[in-house]
Amino acid sequence: MTHGTAGQAAAGAGRPAGRPRSEKAEKAIIEATLDLIAEGMGVAELSIEAIASRAGVGKTTIYRRWSNKEDLVADSLATLKAPLPPVGGVSVRDDLITLLAAMQTEAGQDRTRCLMNIAMSDADRYPRLMGRFVKVAVEPRRKAVRDVVQRGVDTGELRPDIDVEVALASLSGAMLWHTKWGGVELTDGLAERIVDQVLSGIGPR
Amino acid sequence: MTHGTAGQAAAGAGRPAGRPRSEKAEKAIIEATLDLIAEGMGVAELSIEAIASRAGVGKTTIYRRWSNKEDLVADSLATLKAPLPPVGGVSVRDDLITLLAAMQTEAGQDRTRCLMNIAMSDADRYPRLMGRFVKVAVEPRRKAVRDVVQRGVDTGELRPDIDVEVALASLSGAMLWHTKWGGVELTDGLAERIVDQVLSGIGPR
Repeated sequence: MTHGTAGQAAAGAGRPAGRPRSEKAEKAIIEATLDLIAEGMGVAELSIEAIASRAGVGKTTIYRRWSNKEDLVADSLATLKAPLPPVGGVSVRDDLITLLAAMQTEAGQDRTRCLMNIAMSDADRYPRLMGRFVKVAVEPRRKAVRDVVQRGVDTGELRPDIDVEVALASLSGAMLWHTKWGGVELTDGLAERIVDQVLSGIGPR
Repeated sequence: MTHGTAGQAAAGAGRPAGRPRSEKAEKAIIEATLDLIAEGMGVAELSIEAIASRAGVGKTTIYRRWSNKEDLVADSLATLKAPLPPVGGVSVRDDLITLLAAMQTEAGQDRTRCLMNIAMSDADRYPRLMGRFVKVAVEPRRKAVRDVVQRGVDTGELRPDIDVEVALASLSGAMLWHTKWGGVELTDGLAERIVDQVLSGIGPR
């Protein structure tokens, strides 16, 4: 009964580049997809041909793994883990600044910015892709900010009666607004300015 | 010396459909461009051929007026006047709610939404187009909100030491965030919820 084991070992020895080669091709395909997106290509323009050419593989290698480009783009997005920084857990104000500053940094990175662009512009046409994007990129970030805000409500660092979803939108939306359309210089202190003013409000004390 | 006048009159009579026909074609071309954009087409995909076909004109008719599609898209955007509602001028809170509610309504309109999509996704590739869009669509809106916020600072309805640009971003950004990525139902009361919480802040009183 060593047959199976021997057979497996033989198969392993027989195709040493089998699994690795397939994984390598997959990685090259995903990198090529992300590169083309980062260069500004929208989903409609992306072609399996262009991806194959950039990845140095044949089209059939792509089709063997992905039946359509929407799935390929979704899987490519999924490889970009939401790069959330750890928060200190001491001060709600400090943790919100940490999260917003990370958003600002990401907005300056080509890949992230183009992914955001795609998420904002192609959502109407590619709802499945958008669903994946929201799950992979938007939700973890929203959850991170929401957790900190909720902690603030629980500890009394924030008022107990606040509208948590509107708070998230004011914080993240303000950063999004500035990174997309400017209005202020994107200096190191921007996250702090946003958080402090969302905390204090703009109405009379 | 009535020569010139007579000549001009004769020329005018000789091509009664000249100017009007050209204006009609121009309008058809712009409408076709906006329609294709509203259907989700990005700038890179838009072709003069597709626009000509949709408008029912020849390609040369387009090229006679626009040497490239970026200018054509920019001019098309420019025809969509920022549809800002008049504000009452009595209460800063009420005026901000009016402006944010208008943003929410616009976000539900195909043309506006797709224009926003283009503005957000194609900015990196088409800086000239983006410049026009910012001037035509973003700036008037930003100015309208800024004017109301500044009035609030002047009248004392808002605190004198606020960061006006961050206030704009928190208000408009929060609405943008919700219209793009949800999180809350886009009910009639959303503008009010955002404005009231930006006014009061979320920190302890």
